[in-house]
Amino acid sequence: MKKIYVKDVAALADGSEVELKGWVHKIYDLGKISFVRLRDKYGVIQVVLDKEHRGKLRLEMCISVTGIKASNPKAPNGIEVQGNKVEILGKAYYDILPFEINSGKIEATLETQLDHRAISLRAPKIMSVFKIQEKIAFAFKEYLKKEHFTEIYTPKIVAEGTEGGSELFTVNYFDHRAFLAQSPQFYKQMMVGAGFERVFEVGHAYRAELHNTYRHLNEYVSLDVEMGFIEDEFELMDLEEGFLNYLFDYLKKECAEELKLQGVDLPGMVEIPRIPLADAQDILLKEYGKRSPKGNIDAEGEKLFSQYVKEKYDSDFVFLTKYPVSKRPMYTMPDDELEGTTKSFDLIYKGLEITTGGQRIHDYEMLVNNIAKFGIKTEDFAFYTENFKYGMPPHGGFAIGLERLTMKILNLDNIREAALLPRDMKRITP
Amino acid sequence: MKKIYVKDVAALADGSEVELKGWVHKIYDLGKISFVRLRDKYGVIQVVLDKEHRGKLRLEMCISVTGIKASNPKAPNGIEVQGNKVEILGKAYYDILPFEINSGKIEATLETQLDHRAISLRAPKIMSVFKIQEKIAFAFKEYLKKEHFTEIYTPKIVAEGTEGGSELFTVNYFDHRAFLAQSPQFYKQMMVGAGFERVFEVGHAYRAELHNTYRHLNEYVSLDVEMGFIEDEFELMDLEEGFLNYLFDYLKKECAEELKLQGVDLPGMVEIPRIPLADAQDILLKEYGKRSPKGNIDAEGEKLFSQYVKEKYDSDFVFLTKYPVSKRPMYTMPDDELEGTTKSFDLIYKGLEITTGGQRIHDYEMLVNNIAKFGIKTEDFAFYTENFKYGMPPHGGFAIGLERLTMKILNLDNIREAALLPRDMKRITP
Repeated sequence: MKKIYVKDVAALADGSEVELKGWVHKIYDLGKISFVRLRDKYGVIQVVLDKEHRGKLRLEMCISVTGIKASNPKAPNGIEVQGNKVEILGKAYYDILPFEINSGKIEATLETQLDHRAISLRAPKIMSVFKIQEKIAFAFKEYLKKEHFTEIYTPKIVAEGTEGGSELFTVNYFDHRAFLAQSPQFYKQMMVGAGFERVFEVGHAYRAELHNTYRHLNEYVSLDVEMGFIEDEFELMDLEEGFLNYLFDYLKKECAEELKLQGVDLPGMVEIPRIPLADAQDILLKEYGKRSPKGNIDAEGEKLFSQYVKEKYDSDFVFLTKYPVSKRPMYTMPDDELEGTTKSFDLIYKGLEITTGGQRIHDYEMLVNNIAKFGIKTEDFAFYTENFKYGMPPHGGFAIGLERLTMKILNLDNIREAALLPRDMKRITP
Repeated sequence: MKKIYVKDVAALADGSEVELKGWVHKIYDLGKISFVRLRDKYGVIQVVLDKEHRGKLRLEMCISVTGIKASNPKAPNGIEVQGNKVEILGKAYYDILPFEINSGKIEATLETQLDHRAISLRAPKIMSVFKIQEKIAFAFKEYLKKEHFTEIYTPKIVAEGTEGGSELFTVNYFDHRAFLAQSPQFYKQMMVGAGFERVFEVGHAYRAELHNTYRHLNEYVSLDVEMGFIEDEFELMDLEEGFLNYLFDYLKKECAEELKLQGVDLPGMVEIPRIPLADAQDILLKEYGKRSPKGNIDAEGEKLFSQYVKEKYDSDFVFLTKYPVSKRPMYTMPDDELEGTTKSFDLIYKGLEITTGGQRIHDYEMLVNNIAKFGIKTEDFAFYTENFKYGMPPHGGFAIGLERLTMKILNLDNIREAALLPRDMKRITP
């Protein structure tokens, strides 16, 4: 017999025979019979077993159950399966589970949950984070494919960092020293110039940052975009805003159940305000007496400014634009309209930066001069600048941290809750 | 005006005004007028310019052209654009192009092409490899999504190798030594057990192999699958065969033009023969006088055996099954039907192994005992074996090397031709 998913049982007529396979989620022993809740990829269902079939079942064992579908108004969703055959497919070897996972609330610290990741993920609420995360990445790809973007896979072992050498993990690569890519920045630009015009990548990025905070990971999944033949950086913001609109609609449609389990009611999107950084700094000072570091806004400022934007524009998002030259990488296009600034932006979502983007320099001479201004040896980046000798279109792009976006959509407290298997300064297992 | 893609011009009425953006692919100067071929993401089109507008255009410059669509039976595809405005968007700074890319054939060595990757990709035939490769990966994801697989993103920075420590790149990870993942093996199994039941990943895998051959890369894209609640390894072969059927149909439909450019006529799929390794060794000896290494077939044997299968079964593919215990990793399920063998397989395609797969051990005690038999310290793998204590379903999976599959579908000579930016023992740039 073919296994049927729990979610598909409801559609069957009472009396149908089914074979379910999954895990023992809960057991209620009631004397002669037991209610065993069986959990699979898509849901939980009640199975009624007599003593013999109940046998030595333990929580989290992997089993198959054959039985008859029946309606029972007292069962969850009004459905149960009267089991007449039980087989243990995967035995249990534990003395006691590391923590309870079938009660809706996990009484273990986040660190303990992460230490036992294969167990904590079995809790439906935790699992739902990653069901939603899969859909976020999928919506990103689907949206961009419709907009003529090509998906690329670029190397993570690289000879130079994209931002000049700090915060890089080193790899011992045969006789060379190599690095793990901080971003696919150089390669996505290269692929725009190579003729793909518009590219995206969903891949890992590495930052050897000495931060152990609620919002930093040392390995994360980056949703990267690069777009050729743009007019200016506002076209990039239009694209990102278009994606976010699409994403929210998509999640409402595809993840209604998971969002409910997370207690999240996604708002309708509004137009995202675009505010120059200097203006935001002024507002922070005037409205909150908050001073900002030169040419930037710190984490506290991001939170306060998000609060301001929410109140004034009813938007959870805000684009900060026109960052100063000194705060942006060497490849950022200067903004002639406002001396000392660049055609760049950040996207702040509920008080956290989730995107950095901007228009890039596409002219070879301008790029080489700019690299020199930054005090970087242009020879080290010859493999990069070469691309600009042969006709590069005006272009730009941005990147969204998948875990940060997930965390903020679901109002999670710690980015590790939005990482399947987080890597931080202290954790490289499981 | 909005840029229109070259491929969309044909559908317009003669006399329509269009704006094209792309690269100068070819220039034919004919006295008073010039034919400039403009290349964009999707194609090449003829643009007619007078002397003034022809101006200082050089090959590969990035330009925008505004003009009028016209029919001209002598132009390629019978279409041209009579340009009345030309703008240079991306200047050219080269003295001479590294090699000619507009003649259909590139007269440069593969190494030179790879050194100038952003240029070689501009050649339509080379670009078409990666247009097809994108579709291969896409078909893989689409097929598995329909089959209830969840897409996962697992860490590439790991504490232990999946196969015990050889051929690993080391990473300096803060105070620890860590490695780059050879495969997502442990994690995809973990996610099956965590309740996803069926998972796949498209991600990088790293092998520090000291091989510099036509078929090895040190960083490659792995199409990974893991499937819970299987009966045996033949179900995995069914799945892979189903995917390959789907893929070939998909490519014929989606990449007709690119396949034509590559000179590839995809055959209809036939049922893939499944032949135990020992039988294949016997056949090789009997038919070709070819001796095989103990418990394996070498590269020459793979080629000869593919030849045999092609002649006898008219199949480009063959599954070799029942590899001996000694040649498979510690997590491979032994095959009780044939002493000393495992429930594992390789898939050989046109003489090259493109897949290794098999059923895994899912019982905790059996796994721990097996790890000990392999002389590996079980403590080092406690983070892995822990997953098996809490009920793990029978499961198995496989992985396909994306570049190898692409190479073989397109009959390329060297795997580097099927890698956007290959990494090998000598190359970490561009």
